[in-house]
Amino acid sequence: MARGTLGIGFHINEFYDDLVRHQLIVPVGVHGAFARTALFENVLQRVDSLLEMLAKDDGADAYTFPPIINRKVLEKVHYFNSFPHLCGSVYSFLSGEAQAREMSNRIAAGTKWDDLLGMTDVALNPAACYPLYPTLTGTLPAGGRYVTMLNWVFRHEPSPEPTRMQSFRVREFVALGIADQVSDWRKMWLQRATALMDSLRLPAAVDAVSDPFFGSGHESLIATQKTRCLKLELSVPILSPEHPTALCSFNLHQAYFGMAFDIRSHDGKLANSACVGFGLERIVMALFRIHGFTIAAWPSTLRSRLWP
Amino acid sequence: MARGTLGIGFHINEFYDDLVRHQLIVPVGVHGAFARTALFENVLQRVDSLLEMLAKDDGADAYTFPPIINRKVLEKVHYFNSFPHLCGSVYSFLSGEAQAREMSNRIAAGTKWDDLLGMTDVALNPAACYPLYPTLTGTLPAGGRYVTMLNWVFRHEPSPEPTRMQSFRVREFVALGIADQVSDWRKMWLQRATALMDSLRLPAAVDAVSDPFFGSGHESLIATQKTRCLKLELSVPILSPEHPTALCSFNLHQAYFGMAFDIRSHDGKLANSACVGFGLERIVMALFRIHGFTIAAWPSTLRSRLWP
Repeated sequence: MARGTLGIGFHINEFYDDLVRHQLIVPVGVHGAFARTALFENVLQRVDSLLEMLAKDDGADAYTFPPIINRKVLEKVHYFNSFPHLCGSVYSFLSGEAQAREMSNRIAAGTKWDDLLGMTDVALNPAACYPLYPTLTGTLPAGGRYVTMLNWVFRHEPSPEPTRMQSFRVREFVALGIADQVSDWRKMWLQRATALMDSLRLPAAVDAVSDPFFGSGHESLIATQKTRCLKLELSVPILSPEHPTALCSFNLHQAYFGMAFDIRSHDGKLANSACVGFGLERIVMALFRIHGFTIAAWPSTLRSRLWP
Repeated sequence: MARGTLGIGFHINEFYDDLVRHQLIVPVGVHGAFARTALFENVLQRVDSLLEMLAKDDGADAYTFPPIINRKVLEKVHYFNSFPHLCGSVYSFLSGEAQAREMSNRIAAGTKWDDLLGMTDVALNPAACYPLYPTLTGTLPAGGRYVTMLNWVFRHEPSPEPTRMQSFRVREFVALGIADQVSDWRKMWLQRATALMDSLRLPAAVDAVSDPFFGSGHESLIATQKTRCLKLELSVPILSPEHPTALCSFNLHQAYFGMAFDIRSHDGKLANSACVGFGLERIVMALFRIHGFTIAAWPSTLRSRLWP
């Protein structure tokens, strides 16, 4: 497959250029890190408001985490084993003045200087809910625990394709409790999200998928995820009909985080958890892709849904 | 000075503990990366709305940048020369399966593995306005150019002191044009900010300061910054009367960014620029520190200013 095309001759940079030309994003010289304009943000905030409204009766606590996370947390959940290629660990300058001069000289000369920085205690957060679990060690209330957050997440996958960003925002909802609670909760969110996509007139389809594990050796994990439907995604064609883009995912973790951080349900057993994440930038891009770049020309039902 | 105190016996962890106990922040196991609760965020959003309102007649374009920035931009503005100790460069795994196994083994064994990641094209953004300047190469309109943004920024300075975060949000306003334009604009913002602090009943004082350059060799830069008042700060006592905390800064860059990115004012000369940044978390902390942890007990004029 040629770079810049998706097999069917559709140029992925065409959509990127459209987003730039219609003043929705501004390029910054590296892939997947563009600026969002006020027009883009206005739609994004409205989409996020709709999501918060869907959840308004759930009694979820709202947390805001910074884009960085304790690196030890990622080590503990084996993130660097499963997704090393996507990780972003934060390195800083930890030496003295002589080394600093050496660094300045090498930067000025345009030679490699990556060995002069050292690993810090933090990494970029790759999934909105990761920083939550270590804060929940202990026993949950009988009805379970519900939390929501809107965080910037990072994935090291630089790409000219506008929907594949290195840094983007996810509105996430998390449930923890006994297995039936969280699985029913996920079912409810799948219905909510499907209804939302309908009301936004986005032609979404649901699919059972697996996570993008690195390398070989994850075959049994991938098979388990797919056969047990642990990971579902709602996708909409943005770049091509053949390769729809995932806008939200619905994940059952079983007792994975319960075990990693000793979170117990009220019955004393390891807690189950589930999360539902909405890629806010992707939903905005889907809206402009499907309904066109002129908001005034969007279907009136859609406009009144977004701006009631 | 003993760790954890500020010379006058005030324990800085006391304020941190207060913020936790009153459910404003949630610890995450590393310094300066705590979660913010809905209560904290509500006040932060209201403060940000007031700032946006102050600027409503300025005709500023609003951009949202992700927390990452093109590393080359930081190299070009000599960030790694001036503030290497504060930088955060993003490293990822750039090798194959054998190296990935080695990494997993070392993480499991608890041995060093920092040499297995490599430098990427992005770094964490250390100042809200940095990513803007490279997008402005060219000639500005006669009236100058005004932009605002609310971005997450990073500084590698892990500390138990709650106001010294590694990751925090800055609402920033930027002006570019001829020298008089941007200097008058900064003067106006100093008045606006002082009036805002008054209305929030925060006892703010203005001071001419310099940037926290690394090591020796920056003496003449520091002297220039101070004698020409290039950097002003509004500070409020949060941790102690003797060491007030800067809540906002007002910076004249002269033609520094104009030269780095070839930005010209309408007369063809290198553009001057200035920026005004408000540390949103710090303003929220100042409010709780000065007015107490019970919002219902805050002065009514303050409450009606924040929630009109």
